[in-house]
Amino acid sequence: MLSNHLQNGIETAKLVWSRIPSSEDVGAGAEEEEEEEGLFARRSDGGVESLDYEVIENFAYREYQARRGKLWISYYVIVKWFFALLIGIGTGFAAVFINLAVENFSGWKYAATFSIIQHSYFAGFLVYILFNLGLVFFSVVIVTEFAPAAAGSGIPEIKGYLNGVDTHGILLFRTLVGKIFGSIGSVGGGLALGKEGPLVHTGACIASLLGQGGSAKYHVNSRWLRIFESDRDRRDLVTCGCAAGVAAAFRAPVGGVLFALEEVTSWWRSQLMWRVFFTSAIVAVVVRSAMSWCKSGKCGHFGSGGFIIWDISGGQEDYSFQELLPMAIIGVIGGLLGALFNQLTLYITHWRRTYLHKKGNRVKILEVCLISLITSIISFALPLLRKCSPCPDSEANPGIDCPRPPGTDGNFVNFYCAKDKEYNDLATIFFNTQDDAIRNLFSAKTFHEYSAQSLLTFLVMFYSLAIVTFGTAVPAGQFVPGIMIGSTYGRLVGMFVVKFYKKLNVEEGTYALLGAASFLGGSMRMTVSLCVIMVEITNNLKLLPLIMLVLLISKAVGDFFNEGLYEEQARLRGIPLLESRPKQYMRSMTAKEACKNQKVACFSRIVKVADLVSVLRSNKHNGFPVVDHKPNGDTLVIGLILRSHLLVLLQSKVDFQNSPFPSDLRGVSNRHKLSDFVKPATSKGKSIEEIYLTGGEMEMYLDLAPFLNPSPYIVPEDMSLAKVYNLFRQLGLRHIFVVPRASRVIGLITRKDLLTEESESSDTVELQSTSVSCLLSQGNDFATYHAHFSTRYCCTCRSNPS
Amino acid sequence: MLSNHLQNGIETAKLVWSRIPSSEDVGAGAEEEEEEEGLFARRSDGGVESLDYEVIENFAYREYQARRGKLWISYYVIVKWFFALLIGIGTGFAAVFINLAVENFSGWKYAATFSIIQHSYFAGFLVYILFNLGLVFFSVVIVTEFAPAAAGSGIPEIKGYLNGVDTHGILLFRTLVGKIFGSIGSVGGGLALGKEGPLVHTGACIASLLGQGGSAKYHVNSRWLRIFESDRDRRDLVTCGCAAGVAAAFRAPVGGVLFALEEVTSWWRSQLMWRVFFTSAIVAVVVRSAMSWCKSGKCGHFGSGGFIIWDISGGQEDYSFQELLPMAIIGVIGGLLGALFNQLTLYITHWRRTYLHKKGNRVKILEVCLISLITSIISFALPLLRKCSPCPDSEANPGIDCPRPPGTDGNFVNFYCAKDKEYNDLATIFFNTQDDAIRNLFSAKTFHEYSAQSLLTFLVMFYSLAIVTFGTAVPAGQFVPGIMIGSTYGRLVGMFVVKFYKKLNVEEGTYALLGAASFLGGSMRMTVSLCVIMVEITNNLKLLPLIMLVLLISKAVGDFFNEGLYEEQARLRGIPLLESRPKQYMRSMTAKEACKNQKVACFSRIVKVADLVSVLRSNKHNGFPVVDHKPNGDTLVIGLILRSHLLVLLQSKVDFQNSPFPSDLRGVSNRHKLSDFVKPATSKGKSIEEIYLTGGEMEMYLDLAPFLNPSPYIVPEDMSLAKVYNLFRQLGLRHIFVVPRASRVIGLITRKDLLTEESESSDTVELQSTSVSCLLSQGNDFATYHAHFSTRYCCTCRSNPS
Repeated sequence: MLSNHLQNGIETAKLVWSRIPSSEDVGAGAEEEEEEEGLFARRSDGGVESLDYEVIENFAYREYQARRGKLWISYYVIVKWFFALLIGIGTGFAAVFINLAVENFSGWKYAATFSIIQHSYFAGFLVYILFNLGLVFFSVVIVTEFAPAAAGSGIPEIKGYLNGVDTHGILLFRTLVGKIFGSIGSVGGGLALGKEGPLVHTGACIASLLGQGGSAKYHVNSRWLRIFESDRDRRDLVTCGCAAGVAAAFRAPVGGVLFALEEVTSWWRSQLMWRVFFTSAIVAVVVRSAMSWCKSGKCGHFGSGGFIIWDISGGQEDYSFQELLPMAIIGVIGGLLGALFNQLTLYITHWRRTYLHKKGNRVKILEVCLISLITSIISFALPLLRKCSPCPDSEANPGIDCPRPPGTDGNFVNFYCAKDKEYNDLATIFFNTQDDAIRNLFSAKTFHEYSAQSLLTFLVMFYSLAIVTFGTAVPAGQFVPGIMIGSTYGRLVGMFVVKFYKKLNVEEGTYALLGAASFLGGSMRMTVSLCVIMVEITNNLKLLPLIMLVLLISKAVGDFFNEGLYEEQARLRGIPLLESRPKQYMRSMTAKEACKNQKVACFSRIVKVADLVSVLRSNKHNGFPVVDHKPNGDTLVIGLILRSHLLVLLQSKVDFQNSPFPSDLRGVSNRHKLSDFVKPATSKGKSIEEIYLTGGEMEMYLDLAPFLNPSPYIVPEDMSLAKVYNLFRQLGLRHIFVVPRASRVIGLITRKDLLTEESESSDTVELQSTSVSCLLSQGNDFATYHAHFSTRYCCTCRSNPS
Repeated sequence: MLSNHLQNGIETAKLVWSRIPSSEDVGAGAEEEEEEEGLFARRSDGGVESLDYEVIENFAYREYQARRGKLWISYYVIVKWFFALLIGIGTGFAAVFINLAVENFSGWKYAATFSIIQHSYFAGFLVYILFNLGLVFFSVVIVTEFAPAAAGSGIPEIKGYLNGVDTHGILLFRTLVGKIFGSIGSVGGGLALGKEGPLVHTGACIASLLGQGGSAKYHVNSRWLRIFESDRDRRDLVTCGCAAGVAAAFRAPVGGVLFALEEVTSWWRSQLMWRVFFTSAIVAVVVRSAMSWCKSGKCGHFGSGGFIIWDISGGQEDYSFQELLPMAIIGVIGGLLGALFNQLTLYITHWRRTYLHKKGNRVKILEVCLISLITSIISFALPLLRKCSPCPDSEANPGIDCPRPPGTDGNFVNFYCAKDKEYNDLATIFFNTQDDAIRNLFSAKTFHEYSAQSLLTFLVMFYSLAIVTFGTAVPAGQFVPGIMIGSTYGRLVGMFVVKFYKKLNVEEGTYALLGAASFLGGSMRMTVSLCVIMVEITNNLKLLPLIMLVLLISKAVGDFFNEGLYEEQARLRGIPLLESRPKQYMRSMTAKEACKNQKVACFSRIVKVADLVSVLRSNKHNGFPVVDHKPNGDTLVIGLILRSHLLVLLQSKVDFQNSPFPSDLRGVSNRHKLSDFVKPATSKGKSIEEIYLTGGEMEMYLDLAPFLNPSPYIVPEDMSLAKVYNLFRQLGLRHIFVVPRASRVIGLITRKDLLTEESESSDTVELQSTSVSCLLSQGNDFATYHAHFSTRYCCTCRSNPS
């Protein structure tokens, strides 16, 4: 054994010298050890680390729990609900603030431009460009200089977080600030992007910050911090935040819950559902109150447009079977264009990350400003080139105001038209805020408002702009651009339907809605939640079956080509998402084969500090098995210790001891606060390089028993990897031990055993529960321990006479 | 070892003689072994058995899978979706049929009664009573004589099924028939019960029957049967069926999905969600088409009332903060009355089961007829005692038709009134179908239609009737009665609000809706799904926050007293539901302690038929560990064999062999069809008592290797029971092995190991995958096997110098 020890020491030393990990490498998880180059390159602005949905029930944790009474549990539950309330209120207000700001900026911009073009189109053009440029510049500077993690939609990162991978920096306070102000600038500046993804990220940030009691910098009420000690609690809050974000973005509380359920979270507990729904409803109340307050005109340009809600309840109610064919065609187009969108954005983002964005922040800022310029020019100049159309007969269509009066929102924009009674159909959708453009595209009773030529021009230009804009260093959502693109071709198809099936009661607006659903389905591959969101934003339950049909087709077509937008982007960012279903090949692979090339480093229960440090330096594993040695030389696995916990122990040094013998476990919770062991969301976590130990300290010992997870989940070595995958994914684990096949079965747990009543166990003392902790506190007498359970023989086996 | 064997033999024999299990006992699962008497008494009409959500990947299964190509997988997926479609269509038509029949029967009944009472109230009374009695008699006879499992709502049983417990008989074809015709009789007969719970059961039955390719009696297309070989597939279908049932009952597709998600299923996979939603949407389409077809008047009395949908979009849109107090009071009342309802029904049902229903079917029939008589008398006679009120001024309220014209549905029924311009408010709600009564209670713009006295009378009488009716031998849902009760006291509170806050724009109908939500919340304790269902049936999204508030309160109040209605009833029926969260005491209990008193019976790999039979007879376990003996006397657990599979093997006898040596595993799938091993939903499964073996056969041997599950999930003996519970519940298991702590760790599975790409394993042969099967096929050479993995030493352990 000694020789073994020596040899290992030499090997370890070799490893240390051959590759001293940089501080950034250590911050990254074991997941990246063998990471490939190319598409899977590391993010330069931070690594990723796995999270554990399991509560680490070590001795210290149990000692804490035992001290807390029933009162504490009720307090805990109340705080959880109170936080759900706060998340709802916070996200609601954030959404209202963003919408208010965006609507007002856009309102001023268009008001100014429209009043100037009465005199000079060129001056108006300049003002328009400069206004946009200013807002976009503000946005990109905030993001690049202050909150780099606020770029993009944030949904892939949040999805990763809830799948169990933490991307550093996504839930910081500065990210929250950057996201809110950045998306005001980028959306107000008229770029081809939306504010819905950023709102989801905003909700998640608010939730996470609440969960840790405010930003680390400001230390708002750190007493709250002690309530939520595990990744699990914080993750539940973030789930609430996501749902709140969607609910706020679309005023769709049910859609928010379903979005969080379907798209974002990977684990779901039914208790959580009610809390998530509560949060969403609070958001709905906040947003509704704010909007009714704004109706009195106190909010400037907000109120007329504002929140996404395109009421098409006046639209088509019935449909004939003949219409199913064009609707199916919309689905196919959506699948194709959506898949193409995903592929093109993947290429461009990859190119941008590898070549462009490495050159520094100035390039990022220049890039965004350039895109803003192009967008402004296109959206202003293209309508200029378009010939105006005469207004429809006002007597035949009494509800229509054509051209719309100056200073209002609506259809039929008079822009660069020779006559008064004319409108510019391209300007109606292009030279407008996106919300209003969508409202115009969805609008019913406006036959032949748009020419096919205008719609096609808009489709091509906007599609290209959306692709180019995606992945730049500003907060950017893909929902609204997706709806824009989809409703354009939807309306195109609708026009053809009106032309060919002349007698049907067809509404082009309904087709535009279906087009929007199909493009989102083809790109994001969401199903139920998207359906419900579409229904909630259009306030028309009767279109549900049609939306479903279109989504079924577009998702199927899209899946034929590639993965969903968020999955592709998560992969690009090096976020290893676990799908809900194991891959086919896993059925024919065993757990042992999966960890064939591993070199498992493990510790003894009492370990020398120097050895600990050398192992932590020489590899980047995040969890280590702890093995105890029995007097007869046999070994016994007694638990799992996390790297992060070891680092806390090494840094605090209070547990170091001179003797290599087990210490008394009681009182561990006096030496440490449980919250010390929780990795704050605001930092990358500690690194072994940052810990300095003296030579004397290096010679001391550390008893790992109170800190190890005494019973991680285990699988036998020849279990199929598919089953291991299910275990890992369903329970949200971070480490599973692969162990040899057992020699005997002590018992079988069935449903009955899990339904026994409490009375039976009332005599068990709380703290002595997990036999490892109880056992360890008796002073390492493994011989007794083993004898104890060895007396229990397996079963009445009928042995084979051979 | 031999002496051990002998001793075990003697013990087994003793067990056999001391308690020979009756055939019914064997049918019951191991769960009931220690079942208590009293409240938890067994159902007399069938036992319960656990289901396995895990796919048993034994050698035979793998051999089958290997034979099937990729084409088969696509076929499998297509069939799944096709079934989802069929379930939707089937449930939709069933719902339409039930509604049509009920509406027509009720329509005839009331039309006849109203026309007769023009001449004689007594004759009308007689006709009314006889009509009701006839329908109810028809219903109870069908249920008692033909389909006993069709009694009640069926939701507790379905909930149990999806939680992993099969109650025999609930998914039979005859149950389906009994449910459909029984609920037509019971609802049409005017009892205080609804048709919504039965519709959920109907959907589940249709799904299950499709899953097994029709009824066992009729053998419709048994080729389909081969597609769905596991409990898991069938359970997914039943989930679809449940959602379809709710969607059909309330025309609430989203509510259906959420109901299935929240209330019924215990496991949920995101792939399933989309399919469930598809089914619900199909139901919506079918129901909608049928209703629009009926609008032309081809459906008799159906069309005017019909499906539950109480559009209150004309109701109150805004609310002031002052109103929150009365709304909170509604929540508290709902919680109290709901909890009381649960408690009283529990007592009455228990009394009924233990005393009344044991006396045979005649007593059941008499009981229901008596209740029908009482219900008819109360609903006819009480309005007679009530003085009529004068109609509201028709000029001040132009929209109101008072009294309603004869032969129509609506408010303001003229019943036993002296003058023409009068109406009887009690008759308006009591002497009416429940759907119409609810519509009247929810109706807006009808201030002071009901007197407080009438509402109170109705509340007390209907509450009592609902409690007495619950648990009788007819199909009975609790949704509609719950809505009736709730909306009555809701409207009462609304009346007081109108009286006290005089200036507010208060609608009594809105309060009635909130009351309905509060009672359902207080009784069933559903949350999200109930919210969505209420929103969908009232078609008013704006009331969502209020409904949530009321539900939050009523659920909290109710939870203070007892469990939800379905949980209580499931417990009463001996269905052991596993909640989603482990109980508190489980944290301080280990797996070993949980199976302390167990006597695990296990088998060798090659086992003598006589031994097999004796073990199967002597205990009622459903799963047995299989242990192999190495030449050096050590043992190794090689898997788990199910009782049901053993019974199939014993019955077919094709695997019996003369030598006690391992056989060749290949070709097992030629001897057996995989579908042989699937327990059909239509039977109780085989029993060991039904299998007859000759003396010669008893002396033969059986090689269990191809049929055992080679890697059931395992837990170390000192894992806390809470963690075991999570594993069991989340993965939907039936058996977990408790094994000793491992001596070493072969590897650690982390996220990275589960994300490796397929290429690595492409050289692995599909069938040789699970090393047990591969190993077993090489002829039991465990020495080699053990040597193979013994060479892989755990890790670079830093040993303690002590």
